[in-house]
Amino acid sequence: MLFFSYFCHMKFTLHTTDVHTRARVGTIETAHGNIETPIFMPVGTAGTVKAVHQRDLVQDIQAQIILGNTYHLYLRPGLDILQQAGGLHKFNGWEKPILTDSGGYQVYSLAATRKIKEEGVTFSSHIDGSKHVFTPESVMDTQRKIGADIIMAFDECPPAMSDYTYTRKSMELTHRWLQRCVNRFDATTSLYGYAQTLFPIVQGGIFKDLRAESASFASALDREGYAIGGLAVGEPIDVMYEMVDFVCPLLPANKPRYLMGVGTPANVLENIALGVDMFDCVMPTRNARNGMLFTTEGTINIKNKKWENDFSPIDATLGGYASTHYTKAYLRHLIQAGEMLGAMIASNHNLTFYLWLVREARLQILAGTFHTWKTSMVEKLSRRM
Amino acid sequence: MLFFSYFCHMKFTLHTTDVHTRARVGTIETAHGNIETPIFMPVGTAGTVKAVHQRDLVQDIQAQIILGNTYHLYLRPGLDILQQAGGLHKFNGWEKPILTDSGGYQVYSLAATRKIKEEGVTFSSHIDGSKHVFTPESVMDTQRKIGADIIMAFDECPPAMSDYTYTRKSMELTHRWLQRCVNRFDATTSLYGYAQTLFPIVQGGIFKDLRAESASFASALDREGYAIGGLAVGEPIDVMYEMVDFVCPLLPANKPRYLMGVGTPANVLENIALGVDMFDCVMPTRNARNGMLFTTEGTINIKNKKWENDFSPIDATLGGYASTHYTKAYLRHLIQAGEMLGAMIASNHNLTFYLWLVREARLQILAGTFHTWKTSMVEKLSRRM
Repeated sequence: MLFFSYFCHMKFTLHTTDVHTRARVGTIETAHGNIETPIFMPVGTAGTVKAVHQRDLVQDIQAQIILGNTYHLYLRPGLDILQQAGGLHKFNGWEKPILTDSGGYQVYSLAATRKIKEEGVTFSSHIDGSKHVFTPESVMDTQRKIGADIIMAFDECPPAMSDYTYTRKSMELTHRWLQRCVNRFDATTSLYGYAQTLFPIVQGGIFKDLRAESASFASALDREGYAIGGLAVGEPIDVMYEMVDFVCPLLPANKPRYLMGVGTPANVLENIALGVDMFDCVMPTRNARNGMLFTTEGTINIKNKKWENDFSPIDATLGGYASTHYTKAYLRHLIQAGEMLGAMIASNHNLTFYLWLVREARLQILAGTFHTWKTSMVEKLSRRM
Repeated sequence: MLFFSYFCHMKFTLHTTDVHTRARVGTIETAHGNIETPIFMPVGTAGTVKAVHQRDLVQDIQAQIILGNTYHLYLRPGLDILQQAGGLHKFNGWEKPILTDSGGYQVYSLAATRKIKEEGVTFSSHIDGSKHVFTPESVMDTQRKIGADIIMAFDECPPAMSDYTYTRKSMELTHRWLQRCVNRFDATTSLYGYAQTLFPIVQGGIFKDLRAESASFASALDREGYAIGGLAVGEPIDVMYEMVDFVCPLLPANKPRYLMGVGTPANVLENIALGVDMFDCVMPTRNARNGMLFTTEGTINIKNKKWENDFSPIDATLGGYASTHYTKAYLRHLIQAGEMLGAMIASNHNLTFYLWLVREARLQILAGTFHTWKTSMVEKLSRRM
């Protein structure tokens, strides 16, 4: 298997599709191991999933793939260091698959200033104000240097609820950039001896005709997987579901589908039902640092005084180290006192929950019980404890 | 053994004393397990050793006992919560021995305002400015509620290099408070079914006649162990060694000796040679958060640019998870980027190093090679890499 994967392209095997929904079970084979879908990918922005040791990602959380962020990694530690290290896997000691986003989203949301032209985007670093240019070609080269197993096309992300004219113009730019990404990607090879895969991103905002056009453009490129971008950026939740419901059937059935930046546990389940295979979101770790916990019985704001003398495990049903070894009262104390261990426990717990959720979804799909299980889980997940 | 220790007082067995120095090897038996001396105790101020999971303290760092701080725990989470939990061990999930300091040092160094009277100390919380009173009696009661295996007497800590008159006056107050601590301690019992032990603290600043008087006063109380306080507070290093060298022989040979708040790795080794058995210091964790690493080859400032492309393990010789799994370049990146994982790795590493140092010292004493080993280690430890 390892021999296969180091030298061949990523491979996706679709095992089954749910009879009641469009939920799917599959396996993605990469040079750094297999990914069982549906999957949630913890976000490791700057080469680290915040407040979690690499060992704990594997042993406690059972993560199968993590994200890295091209914008952040390009600025710090920088490509020279990453290349000297032999790529991000070697640099951070994470031996399983990595996906890097293209940095597009961060250029638009984080950079101090930015100017979008046909050629690419000029921006100032949010760290030191220094000037940089990202083009479709440079972003492909950058992701070659980072060395992720799955790399993303460089796109423009229009603001939520942009009007039709702006969204069409942006989508057409994204398509021209996508073709340039494909050209550059196919003209170059991996730097570290294992295959990389490029995922196009479907844009088109909240307009079905644009989404259809974008899905068609992307599908025609015949890549190993496809992403849906430009959602979960502030539009109403039903609009997100409507778009995903519309786009999924337009994408090749035999390729994995990745919904970028989504979302709450309920969002993940609903989108699995619509045919999505891969997810990422900062929510489990960011909310953890603010004391918000996702559990098998609902959501907990651990800062609430009611938890101060609750000496029960964080989530006894969930299992795992953080969820069962530490109590709600202790975690509340740590978060209130601003102790790092609070963020560490909460992040470990929330990610353990997210990975349990997608593993359980997979089992339920295989058992043919996904639909009823999802309905009861979404109800539970909406509870505030 | 567990039966013994839950119902009997702490027991110290002195196994051997070095022939070339006064270094000792012993075993302390407590209700929560044995402690092999000489030992370093990681500081867990507010019920957590900063940035380290309890599991990693046991498995990676091999800590045998940790500290809690009475001042911090009294203010947050508060005694009511700790008592409801069944004591600090139950509250934070640390099942091995705990020592609590008396809070005296923090009252003098952290509290916004404080007023020392014969009865005790009135102070304002550094968290919310609320008024509190610590007396020798209240501090014994507080440490009963926290439930540490070893608890410390409430003393006054005079500033470094205080003059003779102030130091004598302070020492005499500390002795009156010590007698009150003993009276209260002996008149009360453990709240959680296992024995606790009270250590008196020898004061006397940098004056030998006062130190002799204080050691004599403390020894006469015939407790299970003794601490040396009021050192490592800013006096010259040679003065600290001179005082420890002077005091140790005045303390009972068959009881453990604890030098409070010390120190650098070299300080630990030199004081082991003078007859000290127990140490604590925030240095390994605090310096870790600032990027300063203690290694088997010397001290590293990981922020230094020279480490940015050093892909060797943090300390391959030391072994253990953090020291061997992560590279210097990766740790530098994390510390530079302000990522929590940086503090987590560096804290894990530095504590692993401190615990290795005292374990190795123990082996060297047993082998009769401590003196030559210490000389070469102190030389290595002074290197800045």
